[in-house]
Amino acid sequence: MNPIKRLTKEIIKFRDRREWKKFHNPKDVALSLVLEAGEVMEHFQWKSEDEMRKYVKTHKQEISEELADVLYWILLLSHDLNIDIEKSLDRKIRINNEKYPVSKSKGVATKYDKL
Amino acid sequence: MNPIKRLTKEIIKFRDRREWKKFHNPKDVALSLVLEAGEVMEHFQWKSEDEMRKYVKTHKQEISEELADVLYWILLLSHDLNIDIEKSLDRKIRINNEKYPVSKSKGVATKYDKL
Amino acid sequence: MNPIKRLTKEIIKFRDRREWKKFHNPKDVALSLVLEAGEVMEHFQWKSEDEMRKYVKTHKQEISEELADVLYWILLLSHDLNIDIEKSLDRKIRINNEKYPVSKSKGVATKYDKL
Amino acid sequence: MNPIKRLTKEIIKFRDRREWKKFHNPKDVALSLVLEAGEVMEHFQWKSEDEMRKYVKTHKQEISEELADVLYWILLLSHDLNIDIEKSLDRKIRINNEKYPVSKSKGVATKYDKL
Repeated sequence: MNPIKRLTKEIIKFRDRREWKKFHNPKDVALSLVLEAGEVMEHFQWKSEDEMRKYVKTHKQEISEELADVLYWILLLSHDLNIDIEKSLDRKIRINNEKYPVSKSKGVATKYDKL
Repeated sequence: MNPIKRLTKEIIKFRDRREWKKFHNPKDVALSLVLEAGEVMEHFQWKSEDEMRKYVKTHKQEISEELADVLYWILLLSHDLNIDIEKSLDRKIRINNEKYPVSKSKGVATKYDKL
Repeated sequence: MNPIKRLTKEIIKFRDRREWKKFHNPKDVALSLVLEAGEVMEHFQWKSEDEMRKYVKTHKQEISEELADVLYWILLLSHDLNIDIEKSLDRKIRINNEKYPVSKSKGVATKYDKL
Repeated sequence: MNPIKRLTKEIIKFRDRREWKKFHNPKDVALSLVLEAGEVMEHFQWKSEDEMRKYVKTHKQEISEELADVLYWILLLSHDLNIDIEKSLDRKIRINNEKYPVSKSKGVATKYDKL
């Protein structure tokens, strides 16, 4: 089974058995998205590139848990807003392909509106 | 094909054709995660529950684009750190099931450490 | 003595006695700013307006500590970048006064570029 | 006049003339705090230490505006929650002095609970 659909189903089942839907308005859910993304980011704070390289090897488990938390809220919010997130990301990649033509953006970290 | 694997492949292909890997250290990528999550959140700011309900109907496209941006960075970072995000989220859901037993958490928004 | 100057002095004295300046590049300091702002925000998550009203009365101490953390990093970063934050905010208020003329923005939550 | 008090007064006067208090519940205000902190952070993304050093010289004006925005929301929220932010930060510095004794924390980026 498509893992995005399967994971979404399990998340919603988990929530509904606890009757938590009433708390899940989009604003508060989006707060979770930001706060969990912050927890991913916190792992890399105060570290040089070298220190990060070592750190990610010894803390893969912790980082993967935080990343999973972000994905959790993406799937939940997509479900609640009736958004097909796979289709949305496909569309986004297509848009980015147009915004950032290889010929202009190769090796350059320039935002598309300044290309 | 498994859509998580397929989307990851396309994201990495998109990046590598532009030779952007050199910019993608985990810290800066995690910043993108936070900033894009912030853009999702911004859609709901200053709105009551009623206003949100109307808003999400007329702005589904915009919100889905921001959500796709967050997923984009999750898949890219998971790839770079060699994390199997599907497995991580499965594990997380299992952990949450233990942390929040239905009997104790039904209808209550209490953090597990205060249950 | 001007409290902004005095607090900044104490923050820098605190840091320099611990020889922490070497960690304080603007990027990592800005991460702290975001993460501490997130901790302020977390206090209000999953709460209705009514619940917030009660909550802020009984948790003033905790919230004020988080707000102080954000101010801490603003003053430290302003110092390191040689920014006069009092002057900057004065300037910002002047700009906002022009962007949002009372006649057009009274009672309306519209962003200036849509006024 | 004490600049924290003076700036707070001007911010509240600015708001009240536009009758915006009704929008300013603590949750949405805290969202602004996070989003504006994110705009500070964005200035430093994708940049090495060297690139940051050059960047902050040529973009001081832009960065100071974003920092002022964060301070704006701190002062507004402190006012609305009846928090004396100067006193709170004084208290915080005192607490940090105890949490991080110079002898143990000199030159080390270790969180107090791991000292």
